[in-house]
Amino acid sequence: MSKKSVIITAGGMGKRMKSNVPKQFLLIGGIPILMKTISMFYEYNPKIEIIVALPEDQIENWSKLITKYNFTIAHKVVKGGKERFHSVKNSLSICTGDLIAVHDAVRPLITVELIDRCFEALKVNNVVVPVVEPKDSIRMKQGVKNKSVRRNNFYLVQTPQCFKKSTLEKAYHQEYKKHYTDDASVVENNGTEVFLIEGIYQNIKITNPLDLQFANFLILENNK
Amino acid sequence: MSKKSVIITAGGMGKRMKSNVPKQFLLIGGIPILMKTISMFYEYNPKIEIIVALPEDQIENWSKLITKYNFTIAHKVVKGGKERFHSVKNSLSICTGDLIAVHDAVRPLITVELIDRCFEALKVNNVVVPVVEPKDSIRMKQGVKNKSVRRNNFYLVQTPQCFKKSTLEKAYHQEYKKHYTDDASVVENNGTEVFLIEGIYQNIKITNPLDLQFANFLILENNK
Repeated sequence: MSKKSVIITAGGMGKRMKSNVPKQFLLIGGIPILMKTISMFYEYNPKIEIIVALPEDQIENWSKLITKYNFTIAHKVVKGGKERFHSVKNSLSICTGDLIAVHDAVRPLITVELIDRCFEALKVNNVVVPVVEPKDSIRMKQGVKNKSVRRNNFYLVQTPQCFKKSTLEKAYHQEYKKHYTDDASVVENNGTEVFLIEGIYQNIKITNPLDLQFANFLILENNK
Repeated sequence: MSKKSVIITAGGMGKRMKSNVPKQFLLIGGIPILMKTISMFYEYNPKIEIIVALPEDQIENWSKLITKYNFTIAHKVVKGGKERFHSVKNSLSICTGDLIAVHDAVRPLITVELIDRCFEALKVNNVVVPVVEPKDSIRMKQGVKNKSVRRNNFYLVQTPQCFKKSTLEKAYHQEYKKHYTDDASVVENNGTEVFLIEGIYQNIKITNPLDLQFANFLILENNK
């Protein structure tokens, strides 16, 4: 059986969150978001290798949180880079799995079911990415103007984005480019096709205070 | 002072909602969504003309709901058409305002503040549309394949979309086209530029059970 790893990228300070606490350390359901996210992958498979990329100046703080919350799930911590690209690259250097998921730390509402579907689809694909259909119409910038585009032609992209190790490693030998917004775009830039599967709406990226409020609500509901 | 109208379009049956009740009649905060939406425009300005486009087979049901919930905000009801385009066109035929907002019935979390900003911007623009930046990466279909596109080039579109009456009327003299996903796209197809303003994340379109749960939660929070 193939060995599985997950790289969890925890980068942002969250300007939109209006908080001095890094987004991934804000609390949901009484624990830091990052702990909740890690625990979902552990719940999926206690044997999965878990690698967390954290900004250097947050690593000490994370250690303190681990003690404070008595967090016992084993994981490795690597220094994050300037951009997500560099964080994933650093993580890859210590990653031992054959099948690798890359997941946003601030998507703690991920489910075991979706993680499972991603890894299942990875058996017959090199790259698997969960997406949902946008509910809103979409407009595209055109210089200072903008124009409507056909919503049906677009998807909103989630994580975990899953890769065969060789595919991901090869892709991350490329130079960093500004337009990489996620790992699938890095791999794609290297000529690899991306296989899409259906994501779930609850798997939101916690970006603003409203998201945090909603995540808290959902976790409380699920624990009822 | 210009007379203001709002056309509220209530079309969908909500396949994604897994309910036999039309989406706009599902309850939030104890009342049908449509009543909550109407009440937000009334709260913005009690003198605004309110026109609701409803599928023909829901009009009697709506009357019953009005009695049941003792709903007293004055509004006109018109028959909705096959598509949103036709519903707006029917509504326009009885609309008397000079400045017209078109709003989705299933966006009840709209705020007075955002309605106000839309109408204010309409003083110096022909078309005003609120948008938010996507938090997720975006992929575009390309036949059976797909490719990543630069998220920074895209906006997610909300309502109310606001128009000077003459602009909207002229646009709705056009023939219906399949790619019209909102009113701005109809007007734009007629050569008019669309001015964008910042929307708000809470102004979600209630499309699936999770959205409904979230809207309920927010309304309860705000009433605390």
